[in-house]
Amino acid sequence: MTPARLFLVSVAVLLLLSTPDSARPAEDGAGWIRDYRPIANRLIADATGDAFAWKRLAALTDVAAHRLSGSPELERAIAWTVAEMKRDGLENVHTEKVRVPKWIRGHESAEVVAPARHVIAMLGLGGSEATPREGIVADALVVRSFEELDRRATEARGRIVVLNAPFTHYAESVRYRSDGPSRAARHGAVGVLVRSIGPDGLRLPHTGSVQYDGGVRVPAAAIASEDADRLQRLADRGERIVVRLQMESHFDGEAESANVVGELRGRERPEEIVVVSGHLDSWDVGSGASDDGGGCIVTWEALRIMKKLNLRPRRTVRVVLFTNEENGGRGGAAYRDRHRDELSRHVAMLESDNGVFRPLGFGVSGSAAVRQTVAAIATLLDRIAATEVGPGGEGGDIAPSVAFARIPALSLEVDSSRFFVIHHTAADTVDKIDPAEMARCAAAVTVMAYVLADMPERLGE
Amino acid sequence: MTPARLFLVSVAVLLLLSTPDSARPAEDGAGWIRDYRPIANRLIADATGDAFAWKRLAALTDVAAHRLSGSPELERAIAWTVAEMKRDGLENVHTEKVRVPKWIRGHESAEVVAPARHVIAMLGLGGSEATPREGIVADALVVRSFEELDRRATEARGRIVVLNAPFTHYAESVRYRSDGPSRAARHGAVGVLVRSIGPDGLRLPHTGSVQYDGGVRVPAAAIASEDADRLQRLADRGERIVVRLQMESHFDGEAESANVVGELRGRERPEEIVVVSGHLDSWDVGSGASDDGGGCIVTWEALRIMKKLNLRPRRTVRVVLFTNEENGGRGGAAYRDRHRDELSRHVAMLESDNGVFRPLGFGVSGSAAVRQTVAAIATLLDRIAATEVGPGGEGGDIAPSVAFARIPALSLEVDSSRFFVIHHTAADTVDKIDPAEMARCAAAVTVMAYVLADMPERLGE
Repeated sequence: MTPARLFLVSVAVLLLLSTPDSARPAEDGAGWIRDYRPIANRLIADATGDAFAWKRLAALTDVAAHRLSGSPELERAIAWTVAEMKRDGLENVHTEKVRVPKWIRGHESAEVVAPARHVIAMLGLGGSEATPREGIVADALVVRSFEELDRRATEARGRIVVLNAPFTHYAESVRYRSDGPSRAARHGAVGVLVRSIGPDGLRLPHTGSVQYDGGVRVPAAAIASEDADRLQRLADRGERIVVRLQMESHFDGEAESANVVGELRGRERPEEIVVVSGHLDSWDVGSGASDDGGGCIVTWEALRIMKKLNLRPRRTVRVVLFTNEENGGRGGAAYRDRHRDELSRHVAMLESDNGVFRPLGFGVSGSAAVRQTVAAIATLLDRIAATEVGPGGEGGDIAPSVAFARIPALSLEVDSSRFFVIHHTAADTVDKIDPAEMARCAAAVTVMAYVLADMPERLGE
Repeated sequence: MTPARLFLVSVAVLLLLSTPDSARPAEDGAGWIRDYRPIANRLIADATGDAFAWKRLAALTDVAAHRLSGSPELERAIAWTVAEMKRDGLENVHTEKVRVPKWIRGHESAEVVAPARHVIAMLGLGGSEATPREGIVADALVVRSFEELDRRATEARGRIVVLNAPFTHYAESVRYRSDGPSRAARHGAVGVLVRSIGPDGLRLPHTGSVQYDGGVRVPAAAIASEDADRLQRLADRGERIVVRLQMESHFDGEAESANVVGELRGRERPEEIVVVSGHLDSWDVGSGASDDGGGCIVTWEALRIMKKLNLRPRRTVRVVLFTNEENGGRGGAAYRDRHRDELSRHVAMLESDNGVFRPLGFGVSGSAAVRQTVAAIATLLDRIAATEVGPGGEGGDIAPSVAFARIPALSLEVDSSRFFVIHHTAADTVDKIDPAEMARCAAAVTVMAYVLADMPERLGE
C-alpha cells in the first residue's frame, strides 16, 4: 500500500470507529464523548510525538536504579521527582511522609554441595529471615507442587525444600513464593528455595516478597529456572542432594520515606479529584524500570502534557507516586489515612503497575455505569488501539482508599508478555521498554484522566 | 494431510532427493553414495529415535557443570567420560595428558561509584590480570568503537575504558574482547570494560579470553549490555562517571589435564583414521552445555551408535574430546604433537563447536574433490535437512593437526542464532537445547563419520 493510500484507509477506519454506531458504550453519551475527540487527539499527538516519557524514565532509573523503600536511592529518586515536577509547573508539589520497614538483603548465596558442587543463581525473597551466619547445610527435597509437598510431608523435616512448580501465570504461580516458605516450614523444613515466578529466563532469579504465617520463619530464596531444572534432574535420578544456603537478610527497624504528590488544580471543581498513580519504590535489583518506574512516568505525563497544552480540566488531577508498594504497602495505607476526609470527593483512582508495554486499554472496578463511561472514553483511544475495557483496577497502592470509600478504580492494561520475563529481576531496566509503546501508554492515561476530570457529570452519576 | 498421505509424500520427496539428478555433487559417485542410503537411514533412525544424546549431556553437565581446564570439575568430567565410553564398548579408551594453564577467577566486582552508585553485572575476561587488592577507582571513558577510542586517545590515560561497540556478529565483534584491552592500554587506560560479545540478553555478561599483546596487561571484564547502555547514557549526558573495578583473577601455574580418546577400530584399514571431536572444557560459568558439551556428546554418539548397530566401517573412527580449548588451545596442540606420525593417515577431522541446535550441514576446508565428496555424503541427510555444505571446518582444536598435515577438516554447522545468546555465560545450560534438534546433530555427524570412514576410496583421492 502506498503511504497516501494507507493514510486514506487509516482515516476511513478512524471515522468508522469514531461514530457512535461502532462505539456502543458511547451511545448514551455519544454527544459529549464526541466533543472530546479533538482534545483527545491533541493529547495523543503530544504524548506520542516524542520519546519524552522514555527519556524521563531513563533519567529516573539512572539517577536511582534500585529504589527499595528505606534506601537512600529511593530518597534520591523522591527528591529528583519533586524537583522535576516543579520544573514541569505542576501545582501543590509535595511529599507526604510514610514510615516504611527497612529490609536489607546483605550477602547471600546458595550452592549444591553434593553430589557435585554447583553455584545456584538465587535471590533472597524480600522480607526473608537470615540463616545463621555460617549458613544452613541440609539435604534437599524437590517437589513440583504443594500437593506433592503435602504428600511427602514427612520427608520435609530438617530439609531445604525446593518448590519447583512450573510457571503458568503470575496470579496462579505467585503463591509458591508468597505462601510456600511457611507451608514447607509447617512440615519442618529449615529453608526453602522457590523456582522463580516467571517464564524461563537466562539464569535470572526473580525476587518478591514472602508472606510468613504465624509459624516458624524459615529463610527463603528464589532460584533461576535452570537451577530448579537441575535439582529436579538430580532428584529424579535418585541422587542425594545437599544444599548450602547462606543469607544475611534482615529488618533494620523503620525508615522515613514518602509518597510524592503533584496536581493540576481543577478549573471549576478543584475539590473533586482524579488520582493517577504508580509506585516509585522497587526491589533492590535491576532498575525498577517496568516495575514501576514506567507507571510513575506515564501517569505523571498526564499532568505534564495537560499543563503543557494549557488544557486544565474541571476537576483536579492528582498524581501520586507511592512508596513501599513492594514490601509493605505502607504508602497506599498512608494515603488513605491522610486523605480520609476527601476520599469521598475522589472521582476515580487509576494505577499503572503492569509495565508500560503496548497498551490495550483499562481494567475497571465500579458500577455498571462507571464501566460504561470508561468504555466510552476509551473509544477515544482507537488510534492507539487502547480501547479494551474489562475487569481490573486492582492496583495495590490505590486499593486501601478504593476499598474505604468505594472509589471507582482503573488500571492501565498492557501486553504483559514481556513484563513477567523481567519482573523483580536484575534485568528490569529501561532498555526493555519501547519508547513508542510507552508513549502510547502515556497517551492512554492522559486522555482517560483528562476526560474523567473534565466530563460534565461526575463519573458514575 | 492425513498421516498416510504425509508418509507417501515424504517418501516421494525422499526418493526425489536421493536421485543423482537432484544431488549434483553425487553424480560422480552416484552409485556408491546410493549404496549407503540404507545404512544412513538406520543410523539416522537410531540417533533420532530417542533423547539419549540430550540425556547424556544433562548427565555430563550435572556431574560437572563448570569445566574450566585446570579445575577439579573438568577432571571429574574426564573420569566420568572415560567410564561411560568404556560402558559403551568403545575401544582403546584412554586419556592423553596435557599440561594446561590454571587460571582462577576469584572474587570480582564492578560498580559505578558516581554520579550514583550502581552495581555492574560483569564477568572478568579469561586470562585477565587482577586489579590491586583494593581495586581500581577511575573515571570512565565510554567509546562506541576502536575508531572513537583512537580519536579520543588522550582522554584514555588513567581511565577505565568502556568499549561499547554494538554486537553485530561474533566473528566481527569478538575483537573488542580479545584485542580491546591491549588497544586501550596503549593509550594509557588502567582497566577495560567490554560490552558483552553477544545479542542483548537479560543482564547477562559473556566472558571469553583476552589476548594481551606485549604491552601493559590491564584488568579487563565483560559487562552486560544493560550496563553498557547505562554508561553510554550517562556519558551522552556529559556526566562524570567514576567506576570501581576489583578483580582477583590470576594464573596459578599449570595443572595436569587430558584429552579423552575412544575408538571404533576399522575393519579393513584400521591405520586410517577419521577423527570426530569436541572440547570437554568450558568456561567457569554456566554448564558449558552448548560450548561445548553438546559437541562432545554428538561426536561421541557417532561411535556409540555404530557400535550399538554393529556397523564397523573400513577405517577407524576416533572420538577426541579435547581439553583447554577455551583458554590456551593446549589440547589441540598436544594431539598434533603426540600423533604427529599418524597425522598423514588422518583421512578427515571433524569438530562440533557451534552448539547443537538445528543442524544445517557441514563446513569443509579441503580440496574441491573433498568438498564434492562431503556434499555427496550430505545428500544422505536430506530427511533431517542437514544437507548444506559450505566453507568452514575451522575447529580450534583440530586446527593444529589440520594445518600440520593438510588434513581435510569439517565443522558441524547449525542454526547458531540461539548459540550466541548464551555463549560463555551462566545461562549456557542443557535446558536451552532441544533434544530432537540435538539428536539430528548426532545423526548428521554419525552418517558423515561412517561414510568417510567406510567409503571405498580415501577422501580426496
